[in-house]
This record gives sequence, C-alpha cells and structure tokens, in this order.
Amino acid sequence: MPFEVLAEYRCHGGVQGFYRHRSVETGGAMKFGLFQPPQISAGKLPLLIFLAGLTCTEETAAIKAGAQRLAAELGLVLLTPDTSPRDTGIEGATGDWEFGEGAGFYLDAATAPFSKCFRMDAWITRELPTLIAANFNVDIDRSGVCGHSMGGHGALTLALRNPGRYRSLSAFAPIVAPCQVPWGQKAFSRYLGNDREAWKRHDSVELIRSGQRFDGTILVDQGDADAFLEAQLRPELLRQACVESGQPLTLRLQPGYDHSYWFIQSFIADHLQHHARALLRN
Amino acid sequence: MPFEVLAEYRCHGGVQGFYRHRSVETGGAMKFGLFQPPQISAGKLPLLIFLAGLTCTEETAAIKAGAQRLAAELGLVLLTPDTSPRDTGIEGATGDWEFGEGAGFYLDAATAPFSKCFRMDAWITRELPTLIAANFNVDIDRSGVCGHSMGGHGALTLALRNPGRYRSLSAFAPIVAPCQVPWGQKAFSRYLGNDREAWKRHDSVELIRSGQRFDGTILVDQGDADAFLEAQLRPELLRQACVESGQPLTLRLQPGYDHSYWFIQSFIADHLQHHARALLRN
Repeated sequence: MPFEVLAEYRCHGGVQGFYRHRSVETGGAMKFGLFQPPQISAGKLPLLIFLAGLTCTEETAAIKAGAQRLAAELGLVLLTPDTSPRDTGIEGATGDWEFGEGAGFYLDAATAPFSKCFRMDAWITRELPTLIAANFNVDIDRSGVCGHSMGGHGALTLALRNPGRYRSLSAFAPIVAPCQVPWGQKAFSRYLGNDREAWKRHDSVELIRSGQRFDGTILVDQGDADAFLEAQLRPELLRQACVESGQPLTLRLQPGYDHSYWFIQSFIADHLQHHARALLRN
Repeated sequence: MPFEVLAEYRCHGGVQGFYRHRSVETGGAMKFGLFQPPQISAGKLPLLIFLAGLTCTEETAAIKAGAQRLAAELGLVLLTPDTSPRDTGIEGATGDWEFGEGAGFYLDAATAPFSKCFRMDAWITRELPTLIAANFNVDIDRSGVCGHSMGGHGALTLALRNPGRYRSLSAFAPIVAPCQVPWGQKAFSRYLGNDREAWKRHDSVELIRSGQRFDGTILVDQGDADAFLEAQLRPELLRQACVESGQPLTLRLQPGYDHSYWFIQSFIADHLQHHARALLRN
C-alpha cells in the first residue's frame, strides 16, 4: 500500500507531513496531513482524526487549528484527511462550494455518477486507517475523531454508525440534523437520491433517535455568533435527541464566537484533552 | 486618524481583527492585523509587533504563527502589519517575490519611483503606532518587536536604529547582513541606489559594528535545515558582530527546522515569554 510524501516539516519536535496515495475506494489520488509528535520514536501512539468542513482540504486544520503544540505534549498523532475526492471529472462535482469536490459529507454516495468515487466513509473508516497503521507508528485501535461543521457531521455519524471504532468523539459547530437543513438536503438528495430512509442513516439526530449510541461523552462546542447556527447547525436538536435517548453530551455554547478557525483554535486544547483522556488509557 | 474594520473575530477570549487605513507615509491604503487579549477591557496593555517575511501579508503570522493563545494568557497585544504598500501602480513593483509589493524590507526608499510610497520604516515606527495608540487600549511605550526572515531584518534594524523605541527584540531566521546577501543586495540597490554607505544603515551586522546597540538581549532562533541559511541568512555574521561589540545575543540553532511557519509556531511561545519579561514590567 504505497504512498507519496508531498512534504514533511519539523514541528514542535515532531513532524508535520502531507501525503498522497492512490485510493481504491475513491478511484483516485487522495491527500492527507499527519502530525507525528516526538514520542512516536518510542512506541505506537494513539490517533486523533480531524475532519474538516466545506471548502477545506487536508491543509486547513493542520495550518489553522493550532493543535500540534498540545498534541506534541500529549503524544497524540493528528490525521487531517482531505474532504472529498478531487479531479473527479464528474459533471456537477465542481463549481458549488456546498456539494461535490470539497464537500464529500463523509458518506458513500449511492447514486450515479457520484457513487463511483465519492466514497469518503469507506476511505476514512477503512482504507485510510489501514494505510496509516501499516506505515506509521500508530495504534489504530486507540483512535478518536473530531470535526468541524460538515466534518463535525462526519465525526458524529461515522462514530455513531461504527460502534467501538472510535474511543473518543467531539465536534466544533457540527451539522447535526442534515435531513432538516439546506446543506444536508442538497448533499443527500444528490449523493443518496430520494430515499429519505437512507438519509437518516447519515443524520446524527436520527441515528441517536433510532437507538445508536456512542460509548462515552460527546463534546460539542458551538459559537453563539455563528452565522450558520439557526439555518444549518441547530445544536438544540442534538441536545434534545441526546437527552431523550440518554446519550451523554457536553454541549457548550461559546459566547461571541463564529464559525471560523479563530473559534476552533480557541477551544482545540479542551478537545485534545477530552480525546487524550480516552486515548491515553491503554 | 480614521481606520476601517475589515473583520473582527472572537479568539481566545479576545478579538483578532483586520483593519485598513489610509497612510500618509505610503500614500495608500495599508492593512494590519491586531489581536487584543481579554485583559484589554481592564487597562492599557503592551504591544508586540510581528514583522513578516517576503510574500507575506498582515494575515500570515496572524493565521500561522500560533501566537494568540499565549498572548491571551500573558496579556500582550499582537500587531501584524502588511509587508509593503499595495496597488502602487509602480513599474517594477510587482511580479518579483523578492522585491516591491510584499517585499518592502522595512525601510524608507530613497530612489525614484519607489521613494514616494515604499516608506515602511516611517509607517511601522511612527504612523502605525500613533494610530494604534489613538484607537486601541495599548500602552505604546511598552512595545516589543519580532520578525521572520525579511521581517527579522526589519525587527533588528528598526530596533537598532531607534534606541529606546522597543523594550524587547527577537527574530526567527532573520536576514542579518543584507549588504552581503542576494536578497538584500537586490532590494537595497533598487530602494536605496548605489550608495553603499546608505545600505549599511539598514544592515544589522553593520549597525552593530558601527556601535549601535539594543538595550537588552536579542533572541534569535534559526533552523539548521533552512534552505536559505547559507546564501541569505548567515546568522554567524550576527553572532560575530555581537561578540565583538558586546551586544547580548541568544542565538539558538534548532536542529531539523526549516524556514516555514511550522518552525515559527514551534518556538513562538519562547519568543512571547522573552518579550513578556520586558513588556510586563511597568
């Protein structure tokens, strides 16, 4: 399972790298960032996956989230995958920031022509971890997942759909009820077609309502000055589903913060500590 | 002295803003970033100016240096000015990443046509601090200056040329001897003409040799895997000049680090602490 080193930089005593491999799942080249803290030379370390939002790439969180400093202290490997396949050549897959390239929504598309390569679920949950485990000093059984916005949706749904896969879960300003909001409705209608029951299997609120659980407390931070709060994010729906279903959730409304990485960098340390508590137990 | 708010974001309990004003010195609109930590509501705070390198803007260090977290803890205001005037319309001022727009070299040009608006020294040392002091809760008498590469040259030369102006001084991978290296020779020949004596007044090594001193220890970090180390940076010339002249200098060669912001973010905390020690004394 070969991969290509695009760049590697010394950072906080470890290495921030950017890599590319040919994915079987998506049928094309896929990029990811990986931060390896200094402790990696001494043994296998746990992995925290950060899933980015609409328009982002494997570089966005690596550059803007400010996570490496504390990850280097704690001994966490940080994986920042790209948000979709690229250069797909599919009509309709470019030119709209809410759909297609840069907007893979962390699911496996079911409808043509997108089903051939928009397979972010399979890439993120199976192919990419296998590649990471084979090539880096990572204990893939100790993985946590975090995400922002569309990536928060990805973190929540992939963790809820794959019980036991991730030991820790958190999100920044996640899309929690895509079936009910414009971003989700646009993406799901094109990636999944008109079968609304299929949509529910990729909707955190619906998954929790249907009995799916994450074994641990979900940490969610949400800025109350986020321009997408009411129309696209609606964290109260997640709170309600969790309360009704007994899913432990810590939802924090952060006053004055918006949807940007200025918000994320302000609370990333709390998220890293949240993940470290679960991931650094052997 | 009016200025325009381009954007303000809540960040680490404070505000990261980006601003623009019409500069008398450069004759055009100039942009800067300013991070105000949460303590600013309680009283005037000291200022740390970060001067960026070739090709950078007022956004680069604000996004990539990772300085806000600790600045918020320490109570330091961070100023990140743009690196040159923009949209000058001057022939030869665009199209070369080493000269002109994005490469102002923190001096006042002496030769036409650049002398009209390439006045970064006057903007950084006089006009911009006056604007900051008039509009933000900043104690401008407690200012420190730091910079990277061309901005390291800026920090060193502006501090050496203006004794007493800055209480603290540091640099990442600075150009220390521009008279002797290609970046400096290209810029100085065009901004300053052929008078090599005039060049020396903008060369840190020459300034120290000629008797200029900074009242305090200069902190410099330099990666030993920096691709520009031998041809453009030559920190050994600074070390030699400081040793011969009795200028206190802490020069640290950091193994494996390159010229990037991955390097800067790895050691920015040490620089902030260095500045805080001088700036937080009343």
